[in-house]
Amino acid sequence: MPEHIFPIHDRMVQFDDRCKRLNQRPICLWFCGLSGSGKSTIAIGLEKKLFQEGYIAQILDGDNIRNGINANLGFSEADRAENIRRVAEISKLYLQSGLITINSFISPTRAMRAQAKAIIGPKYFKEVYINASLEACEARDVKGLYKKARSGAIKGFTGIDSPFEAPVQPFMNIQTEAQSPESCINQLFEAIEPLIQFKADAYE
Amino acid sequence: MPEHIFPIHDRMVQFDDRCKRLNQRPICLWFCGLSGSGKSTIAIGLEKKLFQEGYIAQILDGDNIRNGINANLGFSEADRAENIRRVAEISKLYLQSGLITINSFISPTRAMRAQAKAIIGPKYFKEVYINASLEACEARDVKGLYKKARSGAIKGFTGIDSPFEAPVQPFMNIQTEAQSPESCINQLFEAIEPLIQFKADAYE
Repeated sequence: MPEHIFPIHDRMVQFDDRCKRLNQRPICLWFCGLSGSGKSTIAIGLEKKLFQEGYIAQILDGDNIRNGINANLGFSEADRAENIRRVAEISKLYLQSGLITINSFISPTRAMRAQAKAIIGPKYFKEVYINASLEACEARDVKGLYKKARSGAIKGFTGIDSPFEAPVQPFMNIQTEAQSPESCINQLFEAIEPLIQFKADAYE
Repeated sequence: MPEHIFPIHDRMVQFDDRCKRLNQRPICLWFCGLSGSGKSTIAIGLEKKLFQEGYIAQILDGDNIRNGINANLGFSEADRAENIRRVAEISKLYLQSGLITINSFISPTRAMRAQAKAIIGPKYFKEVYINASLEACEARDVKGLYKKARSGAIKGFTGIDSPFEAPVQPFMNIQTEAQSPESCINQLFEAIEPLIQFKADAYE
């Protein structure tokens, strides 16, 4: 078992025993992508698919993080970095608990995602690029945010006046324009199932 | 189901389905008490006892919180309050996931614990006073902290030059001087088991 999730106390419930009980190996799926690219839709669908298949996952996203533990953070560069750092630390706790997390955040910079990977551990951090063109995202504009960004009502909006740095070698590159949400979800599920199936000797 | 842990998305895996799968109802056990009162010993023993009995819990304590998500906090009054706020928010996420948390923090003031209770929700927040006299804790002094506090090397140490406000009406008052750790753990387990047993209609 890797050092970074090694229990501090020998007397604590052991990580392998938790995995065995939950019948899964946890990973952290880190979804990045533009606003409107489909992160939430796929996160929610994948969480449900996993549950139906016998796995337990938890979505971490703006709804439960920005409205909760990170309610005291804004959108400055420093606050966005702190937002991602805290999410990564929470994911690490969940991994220790044996749960899969699906983290759904624009997380626009490579540096930000590299920090998350360093905290979570390269073995567990699986970067998933939820990939749609800016044009498609802007045309969808589910939350009306692109319109506000174009009008100048929102500053520093990713894709408009703040850069999105696409992943170089993501674990998966999910094209949400070219296929249905169901197809994206199944594609992801098939890719991760070999990683999350519990096998007693998987970490030895 | 109470409003504060109601899933934001209807399409998300439902809270009751999670509880059913895990065969438990989650609560947050909030251990407070002086340094050396026995919080860690009882938390670790209780986590193990719960696991043996088929429940899944996660300890949140200084080791995994202060060294992780809260590594950027010190021990000023503001930072101690922020420490507790973040722990409460993390506990709330765990509750949504269906997991029991055992939170082990000195959390010396009533205001601090009231804030945690407000975030977590009164229905789920169970205050447990890990109760030993200052004399006993100081005599144990497992970490050598009381000696340092008496010599002035540590300032603002709870029980020495910073107050500990005992809970007024805790869910449980565990006397760690008068009984063995095993006895404390069993006492707690018996008190919480009726709350955490899964019953399909428990929240209706």
